Amino acid sequence: MKPEHLPTFTVEPWVVREPRLDMDAMGQTESVFALSNGHVGLRGNLDEGEPHVLPGTYLNSCYEVRPLPYAEGGYGYPESGQTIINVTNGKLIRLLVDDEPFDLRYGTLRKHERVLDMQAGTLHREVEWESPAGRAVRVKSTRLVSLTQRAIAAISYEVEVLSDGSDGNSATDGALLVLQSELVANEQLPGRNEGDPRLDTALDDVLESEQSRAGQTDATLVHRTRKSELRVGAAMDHEVTGPDGVQISSDANEDLARTTIIARVKPGQTLRVVKYLSYGWSSRRSLPAIYDQVRAALAAARYTGWDGLVSEQREYLDDFWSTADVEIDGDAELQQAIRLATFHVLQAGARAERRCIGAKGLTGDGYDGHTFWDTETFCLQVLSFVAPDAAADALRWRQSILPQAFERAETLGLKGAAFPWRTIRGHECSGYWPAGTAAFHINADIADAVRRHVHATGDTQFELEVGLDLLVATARLWRSLGHHDSEGNFRVDGVTGPDEYSAVADNNVYTNLMAQQNLRYAAEVAAKHPRSAARLGVDSEEVASWRDAAAAMLIPFDERLGVHPQSEGFTSHKLWDFEGTAAEHYPLLLNFPYFDLYRKQVVKQADLVLAMQIRADAFTDEQMRRNFAYYEGITVRDSSLSACTQAVIAARTGHLDLAYNYLGEAALIDLHDLGGNTDHGIHIASMAGTWSAIVLGFGGMRCDADGLSFAPVLPASLSRVSFGLRWQGRQIRVTITPGEAEYQLVSGAPMRLRHHDEPVALGDDPMTLPLPAVEWVEPVEQPYGRAPHQRG
Amino acid sequence: MKPEHLPTFTVEPWVVREPRLDMDAMGQTESVFALSNGHVGLRGNLDEGEPHVLPGTYLNSCYEVRPLPYAEGGYGYPESGQTIINVTNGKLIRLLVDDEPFDLRYGTLRKHERVLDMQAGTLHREVEWESPAGRAVRVKSTRLVSLTQRAIAAISYEVEVLSDGSDGNSATDGALLVLQSELVANEQLPGRNEGDPRLDTALDDVLESEQSRAGQTDATLVHRTRKSELRVGAAMDHEVTGPDGVQISSDANEDLARTTIIARVKPGQTLRVVKYLSYGWSSRRSLPAIYDQVRAALAAARYTGWDGLVSEQREYLDDFWSTADVEIDGDAELQQAIRLATFHVLQAGARAERRCIGAKGLTGDGYDGHTFWDTETFCLQVLSFVAPDAAADALRWRQSILPQAFERAETLGLKGAAFPWRTIRGHECSGYWPAGTAAFHINADIADAVRRHVHATGDTQFELEVGLDLLVATARLWRSLGHHDSEGNFRVDGVTGPDEYSAVADNNVYTNLMAQQNLRYAAEVAAKHPRSAARLGVDSEEVASWRDAAAAMLIPFDERLGVHPQSEGFTSHKLWDFEGTAAEHYPLLLNFPYFDLYRKQVVKQADLVLAMQIRADAFTDEQMRRNFAYYEGITVRDSSLSACTQAVIAARTGHLDLAYNYLGEAALIDLHDLGGNTDHGIHIASMAGTWSAIVLGFGGMRCDADGLSFAPVLPASLSRVSFGLRWQGRQIRVTITPGEAEYQLVSGAPMRLRHHDEPVALGDDPMTLPLPAVEWVEPVEQPYGRAPHQRG
Repeated sequence: MKPEHLPTFTVEPWVVREPRLDMDAMGQTESVFALSNGHVGLRGNLDEGEPHVLPGTYLNSCYEVRPLPYAEGGYGYPESGQTIINVTNGKLIRLLVDDEPFDLRYGTLRKHERVLDMQAGTLHREVEWESPAGRAVRVKSTRLVSLTQRAIAAISYEVEVLSDGSDGNSATDGALLVLQSELVANEQLPGRNEGDPRLDTALDDVLESEQSRAGQTDATLVHRTRKSELRVGAAMDHEVTGPDGVQISSDANEDLARTTIIARVKPGQTLRVVKYLSYGWSSRRSLPAIYDQVRAALAAARYTGWDGLVSEQREYLDDFWSTADVEIDGDAELQQAIRLATFHVLQAGARAERRCIGAKGLTGDGYDGHTFWDTETFCLQVLSFVAPDAAADALRWRQSILPQAFERAETLGLKGAAFPWRTIRGHECSGYWPAGTAAFHINADIADAVRRHVHATGDTQFELEVGLDLLVATARLWRSLGHHDSEGNFRVDGVTGPDEYSAVADNNVYTNLMAQQNLRYAAEVAAKHPRSAARLGVDSEEVASWRDAAAAMLIPFDERLGVHPQSEGFTSHKLWDFEGTAAEHYPLLLNFPYFDLYRKQVVKQADLVLAMQIRADAFTDEQMRRNFAYYEGITVRDSSLSACTQAVIAARTGHLDLAYNYLGEAALIDLHDLGGNTDHGIHIASMAGTWSAIVLGFGGMRCDADGLSFAPVLPASLSRVSFGLRWQGRQIRVTITPGEAEYQLVSGAPMRLRHHDEPVALGDDPMTLPLPAVEWVEPVEQPYGRAPHQRG
Repeated sequence: MKPEHLPTFTVEPWVVREPRLDMDAMGQTESVFALSNGHVGLRGNLDEGEPHVLPGTYLNSCYEVRPLPYAEGGYGYPESGQTIINVTNGKLIRLLVDDEPFDLRYGTLRKHERVLDMQAGTLHREVEWESPAGRAVRVKSTRLVSLTQRAIAAISYEVEVLSDGSDGNSATDGALLVLQSELVANEQLPGRNEGDPRLDTALDDVLESEQSRAGQTDATLVHRTRKSELRVGAAMDHEVTGPDGVQISSDANEDLARTTIIARVKPGQTLRVVKYLSYGWSSRRSLPAIYDQVRAALAAARYTGWDGLVSEQREYLDDFWSTADVEIDGDAELQQAIRLATFHVLQAGARAERRCIGAKGLTGDGYDGHTFWDTETFCLQVLSFVAPDAAADALRWRQSILPQAFERAETLGLKGAAFPWRTIRGHECSGYWPAGTAAFHINADIADAVRRHVHATGDTQFELEVGLDLLVATARLWRSLGHHDSEGNFRVDGVTGPDEYSAVADNNVYTNLMAQQNLRYAAEVAAKHPRSAARLGVDSEEVASWRDAAAAMLIPFDERLGVHPQSEGFTSHKLWDFEGTAAEHYPLLLNFPYFDLYRKQVVKQADLVLAMQIRADAFTDEQMRRNFAYYEGITVRDSSLSACTQAVIAARTGHLDLAYNYLGEAALIDLHDLGGNTDHGIHIASMAGTWSAIVLGFGGMRCDADGLSFAPVLPASLSRVSFGLRWQGRQIRVTITPGEAEYQLVSGAPMRLRHHDEPVALGDDPMTLPLPAVEWVEPVEQPYGRAPHQRG
């Protein structure tokens, strides 16, 4: 948790501005200001590299292998893991002012401002600095990672010599400026937080040089990772404008390429460099092929030019925001936060293109850069409705790792596919199976993302080409993982649900409901495409066995308490001693053994409550209310995957203020560094959950085979919420104001939808419908000390 | 599993003889021939050191610390483990015959025989060997680890030059013999089986030299372990007899001390060396103190002399066998095996003296040399009845590690003491908590061993001085580990019972019954010694809370099947596919993930069945029969801790032939290397279980507050079984023959006992009572392919 002082960022609708340099918040700002297109990611490190908390340049799926050690091993434990690596750093532009290195830790920092512009898709920086010798300069840099040219990043860097330095000579003499624009491989990384299992160890010195070349204004480095054997190329080129007599030259050795630009610049004059940067990497392509690939991308970027890249970027984002923007009136902080959240979800997925979307996107090294169920359950929930191509590609990536998932299932003695709990390249990298491999729900989460995507887009081709494979593979898994007991119930024993403070339990309600949906939907799609299904070996007997298992699925219910136990027996367990747990002992996993957590009623993150979000059809309103109240009382939200889901169900059960508070927590997790670990990367799932809290919570949006429905509500603190969606080729906007909701078909054919369960038709004209009166509901309570921060 | 060929050992009643050198069985013989007094242990390595499978010289609790790594860490995981080390090897006597090293791999081995004499307590060897040059010698050595002088081992080594070598000269010329008797520290250890979690990694080069000194016939080395900082002294001295002109000298450097004995020995002449060896080690004593300690022990041994040590040894064993011997008529193999079993249990515990008794005793490095619940549940079951002082000392060791157990309980958020699942020095060394820390039953097992010991010995002083501390500490643990549910049941959730193919389940019947007994007995003893209990802070409210928890203990029962589920929900789990499991896929843990094993009905080792052995009072005869039949069908005996318990309950439920078969399996595990891992050490618990299978099974012995009772039965294959016991200062012998049992009070006051539930009085005269007729019982079945080997 960041100490209380001046806010790190100002509150503005479309930008995130850092108005002063806050060294304590540097790790956080590096993550918040990270730029990414899902393919290439640059942390918001300073141009000159130092000071830093964590330098980071990431390429999607560019990882190194590391051994996974066990004090006591076991059959099927993965022997090696995959860790995202900090690749060749091309962001570096060092500056020497009259022999003094430009370093904010020395001299006088007269002004420092950075601005992330979410409409422009750029990070702008403006610094006024006076060197220890009294020479004053103004540096303006603008950085972008192109959303249109996925291999490309670019930096416009300009230095103006000021006339008001305290050095007497500076007003008249020119300053000798040396710019060193670099590509640096195998950067030394800082020591890491040990003892926190959520932060994994970074790897040093993983890149072996294969080629380094320099021209006059350009240079290229090609490396290869030692164990994963990925070839990584990085190239840079420069355009320089400045006073006469600018010299430019480049050199390159194994781990360093450098373009040096020297000029004598008089006060009032400016030296400007545009740096184009391209990356390419592959496990298969040859050294010349990679070399040519990065050079070609670089050539295209130079051809486009800086202004061209900037305008392409804005055009791309204008299009995106036209659907995706969520407007909130009445809470400026939340307005900014939802835009940052949406922006980071886009950045994580936009150009991932059949590679994975990690839990931190490409903004940090947290969780080793791994992808979890976060992607399907949280991220794709957003992307299918605002950037459906990105969602489709993410699921195509899952399809592409089916071979690894088949192999893993076989190792585990199961049929079908067992997708990895955490991975980069498709192999299971979980080193603690009770909270990894046993969390089989990820397979149903993937199936659910397919179902959701098909319903959102109406893309039957996708259903056939991508969906069917995934659905058949996961249905087979569930059929082999569960069994019928002697009374005919279909049981799924010994698995771990979403809540990581329980593990390896029987008949987790979330898991069983998700498996049920998976089996049913697989049966439905297989029946719809019988010939394609037959090619996968699916016959009608097998489909029938899926339907039967789904129909017989055991969903435990505690009649005594009138609630669903999270898993069988859960509600008989001892309640956690919340009153006896000090605030500093959260998160509990860092202060109590799993043994203790697993055996008691304490919930890290929405589990049964998430089941009620996704499988709302399986609960009565009464159950929904009682379950929510029960689980609110024992959920501590030690995971960032919880507040957003609690917001959705709070909104749906009439706890609007509570939903609003949870929305705030989900939205501000990184802007306010609520978890104290934003330095390791943005919480992409919580960002996505922010959107869901609004659209599924306040919008009451549901989308299934019956179409699209809404049940809008508005918390008292907000005067207006407006959000957009893509739905089956259409663009829709929903605006909620006190007492009413407006539906607008921005583009596409007329459609039907449901408003608070009433079917209505939506044509070209906006339609305004009244909201039902808000009923009083019995307040719910959180564990001692764990209520969300009260907003407003 | 050893390949089928000639048996490694001959079958003889009192000795284990290896009639020829079997290189394939060398690891097994090193373990079977290991000599130990519980304080010092020497594996049965050849005198000359090589060839070997695993050289081993162990000192009780002499360990090194090693880091325990985790792919994903967690709160409360032990950061370091303790591993038994191979200390300074003092067994080595190398021989040079006319420049040829005596090495069985070269030249001609004309005769090789080793004999473990269980009455003498010695390992004798006789070899005739002809060197590659044709010189023939006969080597006779006898080795002992003294049961009377615990720091001492001794070797009598003699070489006779034979006149029938193929070298023409040898008949007349003398051979030049050089004997090198050594102390070697930091011996290089062979590479180890990787991938089998049951075999842990040995540590190399752990000893740092502190002092090395040599006299003429003697030498001393003192080392210190690097991390655990234990000081280890080893000293040797020699007596030499031989032809005139024998020269003897010694030298010592850091890791090697050597006494060299040179003589020219004519055919028919003999050179004999007696080597005295002493060890001392401590975490506290100074270098001079340790040095003096080993020299003093050595002086005492030389004073006693070889013949004195041999006769003391026999006297000690005569006394031991007078009680402990079990006689079996009708199965010579079993007769030998039960004696070997009893001998190894004695060796493990005899002089352990407030140090731990490891799962392998001091016979190998398996399981890192750790102590588990094996000690209390299996070993002490024997020792309390045949060597009660050793049993008392083992429990005093538990008392001595209470500080570590208190600390561990605190780490786990519990009250009282949480004894380590595996340890050497008292700290938890388990690196996989679901099958380690979660197996809390070890605490009740310790309490049960106290209860049993007190009932066996009537030692109320022990109950007060040792028992009370242990009982209060463990009762407090259970009281804090369990909780009352809303219906008033006392539940113990999320723990692991004895069966390691299940883990972290609710209300394991074994655990709950053992906890119940622990709570009750603690309450009883605390009430008996109120002032001492008060000093531990126990008041009558606390005692009442123990009684209440015991009375309310939840013992799940499956009414539908009429059996006890091993844990709640267990009988609803899927049955393991035994028919689909190939023989080579056992043990299952090496071929299937824990995930799969834990969620299905498959039992590694007696769990519920062990509960029926220890808590027979908690089951009706009908439940006992039904439970046994049910669990027989799903128990695969992948643990050596199972067959013995199955034998006991098979005997008690009338399955006498099955009991006999299980007895054979328990008894022969090391003689026949049934588990294929005897090379890593003797299965001490299975050895102890052999005794229990006979005494608790066929003898039907039970011992509780009501006294001693028997329910003898005899399987058809045996004509007579006779066993002895110490009971409350008496010595008793029970002899079972077809149709009757004889009870004999060998020494001590008249007593009452029960014979098949009938109270009878036993005075000085032997008493013969009839056995009830054997009733036919419905046969039980084991999983496909897992029936025990049929004997006879």
